[in-house]
Amino acid sequence: MDNKLMLMIPGPTPVPEKVLLAMAQHPIGHRSGDFSKIMAAVTAGLKWLFQTQNDVLILAASGTGAVEAGIINFLSPGDRVLVGNNGKFGERWAKVCAAYGMQVEQITAEWGKALDPEAFRDRLEADTQKQIKAVIVTHSETSTGVLNDLETINRYVKAHEKALIIVDSVTSLGAANVPVDQWGLDVVASGSQKGFMLPPGLGFVAVSPKAWEAYATATCPRFYLDLGKYRKDAAKNTTPFTPPVNMFFGLQVAMEMMQAEGLENIFNRHRRHTEATRAAMKAIGLPLFAPDTNASPAITSVAPVGVDAEQIRSVMKKRYDIALAGGQDHLKGQIFRVGHLGFVCDRDILSAVSALEATLQELGFEHTAPGAGVAAAARVLATA
Amino acid sequence: MDNKLMLMIPGPTPVPEKVLLAMAQHPIGHRSGDFSKIMAAVTAGLKWLFQTQNDVLILAASGTGAVEAGIINFLSPGDRVLVGNNGKFGERWAKVCAAYGMQVEQITAEWGKALDPEAFRDRLEADTQKQIKAVIVTHSETSTGVLNDLETINRYVKAHEKALIIVDSVTSLGAANVPVDQWGLDVVASGSQKGFMLPPGLGFVAVSPKAWEAYATATCPRFYLDLGKYRKDAAKNTTPFTPPVNMFFGLQVAMEMMQAEGLENIFNRHRRHTEATRAAMKAIGLPLFAPDTNASPAITSVAPVGVDAEQIRSVMKKRYDIALAGGQDHLKGQIFRVGHLGFVCDRDILSAVSALEATLQELGFEHTAPGAGVAAAARVLATA
Repeated sequence: MDNKLMLMIPGPTPVPEKVLLAMAQHPIGHRSGDFSKIMAAVTAGLKWLFQTQNDVLILAASGTGAVEAGIINFLSPGDRVLVGNNGKFGERWAKVCAAYGMQVEQITAEWGKALDPEAFRDRLEADTQKQIKAVIVTHSETSTGVLNDLETINRYVKAHEKALIIVDSVTSLGAANVPVDQWGLDVVASGSQKGFMLPPGLGFVAVSPKAWEAYATATCPRFYLDLGKYRKDAAKNTTPFTPPVNMFFGLQVAMEMMQAEGLENIFNRHRRHTEATRAAMKAIGLPLFAPDTNASPAITSVAPVGVDAEQIRSVMKKRYDIALAGGQDHLKGQIFRVGHLGFVCDRDILSAVSALEATLQELGFEHTAPGAGVAAAARVLATA
Repeated sequence: MDNKLMLMIPGPTPVPEKVLLAMAQHPIGHRSGDFSKIMAAVTAGLKWLFQTQNDVLILAASGTGAVEAGIINFLSPGDRVLVGNNGKFGERWAKVCAAYGMQVEQITAEWGKALDPEAFRDRLEADTQKQIKAVIVTHSETSTGVLNDLETINRYVKAHEKALIIVDSVTSLGAANVPVDQWGLDVVASGSQKGFMLPPGLGFVAVSPKAWEAYATATCPRFYLDLGKYRKDAAKNTTPFTPPVNMFFGLQVAMEMMQAEGLENIFNRHRRHTEATRAAMKAIGLPLFAPDTNASPAITSVAPVGVDAEQIRSVMKKRYDIALAGGQDHLKGQIFRVGHLGFVCDRDILSAVSALEATLQELGFEHTAPGAGVAAAARVLATA
């Protein structure tokens, strides 16, 4: 039905009407006191959300631009980096490092499995010469719905003492607990169209004092993505290049809404939605692609057997006006992904699960107990 | 007065309500047929506006990101480049080239004066070894309101045969005639918050076949700004990284509005507004900073004598709710800049001029004939 789309993909995610209307205001000049006030407010909001006193810088860029900035500002060509790769995004950061001439060593896991923290420990402990300059980890691997054990991996990075920990937190910030200061995460990057309840267009990078020390000697060439420029101007509540002011209007409202809800409630909501979605898939008999122990609070990937993933997506879209994500690269046609990230309420989960059960019925999928998925989800939502 | 601001700065520029409301729609998935249709439509619109059959690629970035992409994708560290520098933006592109290790040679002019095309000819003709890989020119120098003679400079670049012509067209596209194919411009970059009648957040880069040949061997590192990735995906009406879908909604409406107005009418409107603004300043007795022969159709810079530029801006903002731009760097306090770029109608010019005359009155500026500025502007608007 025209204009009735419900987004359940891992980004863009649904945006509150209040945020959309804030973005529809006439732009203001970015070199004005009015803009600086907004910049101060949203920066304070972001620091709250990132749980940090570090700088949190705002770029006009997608999440990839933000993560690239988080890598190239603190490293030099030839530097040895250890990259965790268990999906499309881990793979992407290895490519970014290679594009800048770094020596890339990867710790891999099959797509759908979590990175093994012990593999990081082994490699870091073996590096007695302290040649590894950074460890790059994708926290929530959007392509598979796996949440890597960042806390444990980071502990091993801290034990190494020298290496920076650089985190792709694109789909974990605002969904999972990422206590930047408590864990001592050096660089944490994310994007607006994820847990931030905004359309795409802004990238965020939190930078620790230790990372700024590395910045001083890092030689990867950069200009638009040069975070030192953003830091210098952020101190005056301004930006080095024209910021997307309308996105800032939206960000201010979104930060207010998130602060009103509270961090614990936000994380709890994502946890409940993840558990409800997973319980529903189990009750329906659709295999989950990521293990329970490492389930992303942002995305649930499902690898259906006996029914085609793309057909499910097609019926969900055409009949029920729900957009699900497909598999990427070699997973295309193998999985579908349900986003439950950002501005998602309990009703949305029931809508998605009930539409999925109806879709399976239409596709003739042998479903032992129709309605069992909705019932399982409802049980979690009512009690979790 | 709250919420009553009128933007007359060179970006962000005013945005039509239709565009703002289009941007306030719920996002859609960017890997969808619906998004691809929008991408196809806006790409066709941009090609029309750039007057080109070349690729026109769309980035989530400010104008600086787009120009940087237009430089680093076609050049390598060590390459010799000739950069025109007669203002803050020309200076910036020299810095970008230096950041990537290029050998930068500059042709300069005092801020407020135009670049001398003959200086380019001399340098290019002397380069018999064809070592100059690119000439980088800022068409409309936003910091001063000077329109450089791109057509003539480009003719000398064409005579060189080897060098690429890379154009910062950030405040000239959609205001001045920039016939990309007719002139054979290799790389032309711009930004959404300028002549495109949109908020900031999108950058555009048009790339010629000759530039793509250079791309094949260019070695500046890049990933997010790698235009080859955008080109490959644009062929399938998609993008390599999540695009700001709401900005695309707005871009589609803006392109429709511009196409309905027509290129000639758009350029003519900007020319009339420029002439009216300049006639008003002359009648008031405020010295223009850029010469008539090289007046930007986007920005008029004024260097007041006997009255403080920042005081003028302050009263214009506080009493009349009109935002003017100040001078940048060493011109701060020396000039103010009136933007008449993008979604600006005749009434806006009269509003700005009449408010300026009232402001001067309030500031005690000796004005021989109050009202003469408005009368002069009106005369141009009625007859030009």
